[in-house]
Amino acid sequence: QQSAPTSTGSQALAIIPGDGIGPEVTAEALKVLEVASPVTFESTRYDLGAERYLATGEVLPDSVLAEIRGHDAILLGAVGGKPNDPNLPPGILERGLLLRLRFELDHYVNLRPSRLFPGSTSPLSEAVLAKGDIDFVVVREGTEGPYTGNGGALRVGTPAEIATEVSVNTAYGVERVVRDAFARAEKRPRKKLTLVHKTNVLTHAGSLWWRLFEQVAAEHPDVTTDYIHIDAAMIFLATDPARFDVIVTDNLFGDIVTDLAAAITGGIGLAASGNVNPDRTAPSMFEPVHGSAPDIAGQQVADPTAAILSGALLLDHLGHPEAAARIEAAVLADLSERAPGTSRRTSEVGDAIAARL
Amino acid sequence: QQSAPTSTGSQALAIIPGDGIGPEVTAEALKVLEVASPVTFESTRYDLGAERYLATGEVLPDSVLAEIRGHDAILLGAVGGKPNDPNLPPGILERGLLLRLRFELDHYVNLRPSRLFPGSTSPLSEAVLAKGDIDFVVVREGTEGPYTGNGGALRVGTPAEIATEVSVNTAYGVERVVRDAFARAEKRPRKKLTLVHKTNVLTHAGSLWWRLFEQVAAEHPDVTTDYIHIDAAMIFLATDPARFDVIVTDNLFGDIVTDLAAAITGGIGLAASGNVNPDRTAPSMFEPVHGSAPDIAGQQVADPTAAILSGALLLDHLGHPEAAARIEAAVLADLSERAPGTSRRTSEVGDAIAARL
Ligand SMILES: CC(C)[C@H](C(=O)O)[C@@H](O)C(=O)O
Ligand SMILES: CC(C)[C@H](C(=O)O)[C@@H](O)C(=O)O
Repeated sequence: QQSAPTSTGSQALAIIPGDGIGPEVTAEALKVLEVASPVTFESTRYDLGAERYLATGEVLPDSVLAEIRGHDAILLGAVGGKPNDPNLPPGILERGLLLRLRFELDHYVNLRPSRLFPGSTSPLSEAVLAKGDIDFVVVREGTEGPYTGNGGALRVGTPAEIATEVSVNTAYGVERVVRDAFARAEKRPRKKLTLVHKTNVLTHAGSLWWRLFEQVAAEHPDVTTDYIHIDAAMIFLATDPARFDVIVTDNLFGDIVTDLAAAITGGIGLAASGNVNPDRTAPSMFEPVHGSAPDIAGQQVADPTAAILSGALLLDHLGHPEAAARIEAAVLADLSERAPGTSRRTSEVGDAIAARL
Repeated sequence: QQSAPTSTGSQALAIIPGDGIGPEVTAEALKVLEVASPVTFESTRYDLGAERYLATGEVLPDSVLAEIRGHDAILLGAVGGKPNDPNLPPGILERGLLLRLRFELDHYVNLRPSRLFPGSTSPLSEAVLAKGDIDFVVVREGTEGPYTGNGGALRVGTPAEIATEVSVNTAYGVERVVRDAFARAEKRPRKKLTLVHKTNVLTHAGSLWWRLFEQVAAEHPDVTTDYIHIDAAMIFLATDPARFDVIVTDNLFGDIVTDLAAAITGGIGLAASGNVNPDRTAPSMFEPVHGSAPDIAGQQVADPTAAILSGALLLDHLGHPEAAARIEAAVLADLSERAPGTSRRTSEVGDAIAARL
């Protein structure tokens, strides 16, 4: 991982508010970012997502991608239209916009911290929560695995149809994300790293992940390691999540693990994520884990906390760890003082957190 | 689904006790089966698993498979050796024995009921449990998807290694399992079926699953249907599992969903499963979801309940639904009277359940 260049002047942000609640939560994230940041941001807004696609047929024009590439970082709200919109086939936006950005900008570390903040409600029982604090980070591989779009279909629509999806895993891709995960584990007090895969069934990919994990582990004797299958990981996340410190896993398993992690730590209203290019060859992208929630869009009822915390990850990535920590502390304070049963408008949450800075 | 032939005489069971706690829990399942069944069973025991492999290098000789094929049903305990045994590479037993049986015997319906029995402890909070009873069935596809073993690796052990895993999905394979799931949903009071997949990323396979699901749904207007992505399914399973009635999903997603389902319903000590060939062209196989737990093997501390409930699924499949229901009722009674904090020996649990029949 390259350390952030020390920057003093202004930094350029590409903002993709997206659809549904995206623009509302992004506005609050920007509000907080601007108050917390030691540098000024020059923001450029890019209208991408379901709305643009439905209006123009465009998903991510090459010229727009080239422009976005010129920024220091990207802040994304959420993209996605109404469920089952016949004009918006599944995958169009996901593959064409979100995954295209992750792949083109080489976001090979999809970073998802999972922490049960004081004051937020877990669906887990008191007995499970009593086992210890839930505070782990998932390092999800972001540029390979079953997400590559490899595969295809033959004789579509006939009884002889066959459809394949190919999970592509390379030593190049696995080693770099495993190295990143070890580096992150090394910086944490517990220094523990768990590999999650399904080596007993996906033996080709599993063997590659396992060997590189063991190989990099040998260079990090201070990091405690273990391995668990994805199915067993479900059980541990539900019954003993405190056991986890850092998890490294592939793109699809990471998608699954992080949504469960978000659920047990109080819901995706709080889960932040970074699509990180640790080599800094292209801008990294920060986004809440939640979707565009079109059913509640425009009503100022969405919780912007996940977007605000994604802003903190962005600041940290750009070399402002103190400012990131200040945002996190403000969110923590806000969460622990939220009166149960009451609800604030999206902008009120942003205001309250900004006011603490 | 072919209905079971009415049988009066004896039925032939192939018993694969397996490794670790497998033999102990299988003994109790057989004990209960023999008391509950209206027909006599002729059991043949097959020693297969880690122990045999380590001693002889044999996993599943063709001649043994041919013999097993001649039985009416298979009862399996658990297979698997000590974790990280260097003489037992990951996948050898899973691919060579368990999955080979599922694939060769065309177990395309991997049936996993998930029910929170009274008296058993869920890791979910009171607030989540108050939403309703957890009582759903997962119909996991068992012969396709990422489990086919398709894929491979190139330049293994070099920095240029590439490993692939191919998920294979056919209209033939998807339609038959979807039809089975609709038939099962139709027989349940709520008549609700949820498709779980990741259509927005795995677009080729997702489109096939989605289209066949919609097509079969049109023939079953009495069944309410919905669709959720695998990641969102994690959230619902953790925060509102009562919403599910029947779930149909692919082989890998089914593996993941059913372990989480087992966790939230009190642990894999209770989760039963059937690897069912609904066309009855080969014997179906019944097994607890849990593994061989070598660390507690031979100590008579394993809970045989999952194996016993798997025996009930076996009886039901062989055309003895009343006997199956009696076992379930006996297990339910046993569970609700288990004194918290005490523990019984494996054989005591079997005795107690058998005594209620
Ligand atoms: C929207 C979808 C493509 C995406 C993913 O699967 O990665 C989302 O679920 C996420 O986790 O960011
Ligand atoms: C042991 C393994 C091959 C198996 C699977 O992945 O199907 C197990 O996890 C299960 O769910 O029955």
